Amino acid sequence: MNKISIKDKSKMASQAAFKLSAIDIETRNRALQNIIKHLKENTEQLQKINQKDLEYAQNNHLALPLFKRLKLDDQKLNDAVDGIKQLIQLPDPVGVTQMATELDKGLELFRVTCPIGVIGVIFESRPDAFIQIASLCLKSGNAVLLKGGHEAQNTNQFLFQVFKEASEESGIPSGWIQILETRDDVDEMLKQRDDIDLIIPRGSNQFVQYIMDHTSIPVMGHSEGICHVYIDKDADLEKALRIAVDSKAQSVSVCNAAETFLLHRDLPVSFIKSLKEALKKVNISIRGDEQISKIISCDHATKEDWRTEYLDRIVSIKMVNNVDEAIWHINHYGSKHTDTIVTENNETAHKFLLEVDSAGVYQNASTRFADGYRYGFGAEVGISTGKLHARGPVGLEGLVTYKYKLIGHGQIVADYANGKAHFTHQSLNKNCPL
Amino acid sequence: MNKISIKDKSKMASQAAFKLSAIDIETRNRALQNIIKHLKENTEQLQKINQKDLEYAQNNHLALPLFKRLKLDDQKLNDAVDGIKQLIQLPDPVGVTQMATELDKGLELFRVTCPIGVIGVIFESRPDAFIQIASLCLKSGNAVLLKGGHEAQNTNQFLFQVFKEASEESGIPSGWIQILETRDDVDEMLKQRDDIDLIIPRGSNQFVQYIMDHTSIPVMGHSEGICHVYIDKDADLEKALRIAVDSKAQSVSVCNAAETFLLHRDLPVSFIKSLKEALKKVNISIRGDEQISKIISCDHATKEDWRTEYLDRIVSIKMVNNVDEAIWHINHYGSKHTDTIVTENNETAHKFLLEVDSAGVYQNASTRFADGYRYGFGAEVGISTGKLHARGPVGLEGLVTYKYKLIGHGQIVADYANGKAHFTHQSLNKNCPL
Repeated sequence: MNKISIKDKSKMASQAAFKLSAIDIETRNRALQNIIKHLKENTEQLQKINQKDLEYAQNNHLALPLFKRLKLDDQKLNDAVDGIKQLIQLPDPVGVTQMATELDKGLELFRVTCPIGVIGVIFESRPDAFIQIASLCLKSGNAVLLKGGHEAQNTNQFLFQVFKEASEESGIPSGWIQILETRDDVDEMLKQRDDIDLIIPRGSNQFVQYIMDHTSIPVMGHSEGICHVYIDKDADLEKALRIAVDSKAQSVSVCNAAETFLLHRDLPVSFIKSLKEALKKVNISIRGDEQISKIISCDHATKEDWRTEYLDRIVSIKMVNNVDEAIWHINHYGSKHTDTIVTENNETAHKFLLEVDSAGVYQNASTRFADGYRYGFGAEVGISTGKLHARGPVGLEGLVTYKYKLIGHGQIVADYANGKAHFTHQSLNKNCPL
Repeated sequence: MNKISIKDKSKMASQAAFKLSAIDIETRNRALQNIIKHLKENTEQLQKINQKDLEYAQNNHLALPLFKRLKLDDQKLNDAVDGIKQLIQLPDPVGVTQMATELDKGLELFRVTCPIGVIGVIFESRPDAFIQIASLCLKSGNAVLLKGGHEAQNTNQFLFQVFKEASEESGIPSGWIQILETRDDVDEMLKQRDDIDLIIPRGSNQFVQYIMDHTSIPVMGHSEGICHVYIDKDADLEKALRIAVDSKAQSVSVCNAAETFLLHRDLPVSFIKSLKEALKKVNISIRGDEQISKIISCDHATKEDWRTEYLDRIVSIKMVNNVDEAIWHINHYGSKHTDTIVTENNETAHKFLLEVDSAGVYQNASTRFADGYRYGFGAEVGISTGKLHARGPVGLEGLVTYKYKLIGHGQIVADYANGKAHFTHQSLNKNCPL
């Protein structure tokens, strides 16, 4: 059998996408339900195939954390199925009237949400990510091209068949889901500007940067997660300690973990010492600037540290003169992901939340809350540090766009240009009838 | 005086942008008011300087339409001032709470609109466009780099001084408005990814394409306007005639003018003949496909015609078998701008409005309605044919993005991970207090 070209797969996805945009929510939910059924019926075979990937990985000495991510055990499969069940419960993100305006009597304008179209997703070696991403795309009415980690290729190929068969059986247009196999396929996909509307890369910063530099298709992703905890002079010091430790240490290898603490110069020396003790207890080492180094013994931070996403048990600490300096530091060195201020002073918090230019700006809460599940979105397709379209954790809402629907009765512009007719521009309180 | 580099101008704009994001709407409106005052006080000088540009243009034999666009007469200046007055009346697009969720008691998440940051706008030779764009950016709290047509450079330089002085006098942070002078400046601007958040190019398709191909900064613009009128078998033929003629002929050199008519094969021959007559009356020539050519005498359309934005007194006409074929043609050859169906059959209209993948999808109305003023947005910064962030005519709402503000009381993720605390995920009916 000849391999289908990526250009053809993209065209097929694009053709399916405009049919899928007219499929009602009942059919989409029924298809998700049928996917759950097929997954359950095929669990044994799925895990047998996953075992093949695991054996290959073992023979090739895959690092233990990657190996663990690759394994699709009962727990992970159950969680993935629960994820689809939750998704079915969520309201339809498509067809929501966001705005309604009477332009004139009998000439009504509606802004209505619709699927984006065709989305290309490149993701890491977790096969459960395949299930989550494909389900999110189906629920939001988008066609999708999926490229998972090569370590999981047998598992992904099987999941692809399950999704394809179960969805088509339920009336979803054939072609809406496509699978890519090689790195060359990805490079080919990046060229399909006519058929693909959005690329979502998940993975290392270098990888996301590579994708952004090699396509003219819009890319939604996060370049880096350099998150900050700023502890203000008016902070509740107990909260500050808890939030700093949680933001840094609750999980260190994730994008919403803090990399830098900014401390107001008026904080008591005793607090800085307790912070060091607390961090020591959870095995976090400190790189401090000159002033911090005078108070506690620690490694010396260089300018490079302010730009570094450690994803490790290291935190950099800098002393700042005031909230303005903290804001400047974050906007200058940060990555527009998530930053928190610890303060009881709401005026200072107000300033911080307004002026820090990040997707998430918090008062008195850990940066680790920046996550689709914790935000209540059900699931997320990724976290965006770009500033347009969707910011922060991206759930179903980030997978739709809108179109303007204008419903008239033969109106023409000439009549408004020559004064025979006049715009009324009244806001309407109704949903689009079409 | 040394010329300030574009890199430095971008940095200055970026620094001003985060201060501007904290400036309240009263101050922004007061600044707009003060700009009106300065424009009125300086009208005489402004028109004297505009005369300089006009003389230069005359000596260089600028084409008459361009010459007319360049001229800033009393009428245009009054219209521009009226535009600012309307803008002042519009509600603040910044600080709008779009979503509020209780994650847990005392841990509240808000999605709040905020300015995009720094916007680079490249626009044609009309100096009134300078006034409109700069005012839209100021109202929405964005810093802006402006590059107008070189024919208008003296006028734009003077307008820049007026905007800068009047706004700073009213408390707007210095640096928020920057002016670019040469084509090289534009190329330099396209490289400032660290400081510029969005590029909006206005001008010819080739020009917009050039910008898209030469920057990794997000670009909002319209590549082309290949708009369609599909006349269904269930059309009211009188409406169809009016809409077809208006869409094509009310103004031919604009992006929302129709380029192709698609006619259902069951339409009576007499209708096609009347359409030809009606188009002849307004000097529109026809390029028809084989079937159309059998019915009326006309030029022959080739495949290239379906992809051509004439911006001229020409229309291509094709016969289609059904609405599906019309939809396919539009999605395949169109430019995702604006397309209309003429039909009395709401089921067919429903299908067309769902499946046509364009920013504007109309039933029984002229494509020429696709415009920020006609949509009731007050003013527009441009029309977007991209599918992400903003689609169609882009007014104030397209110039803002959002951030997530989380307000807590010391909550940490560890407590939720180990089961000590639980998410409530309740929707809240309140605005963000900070």
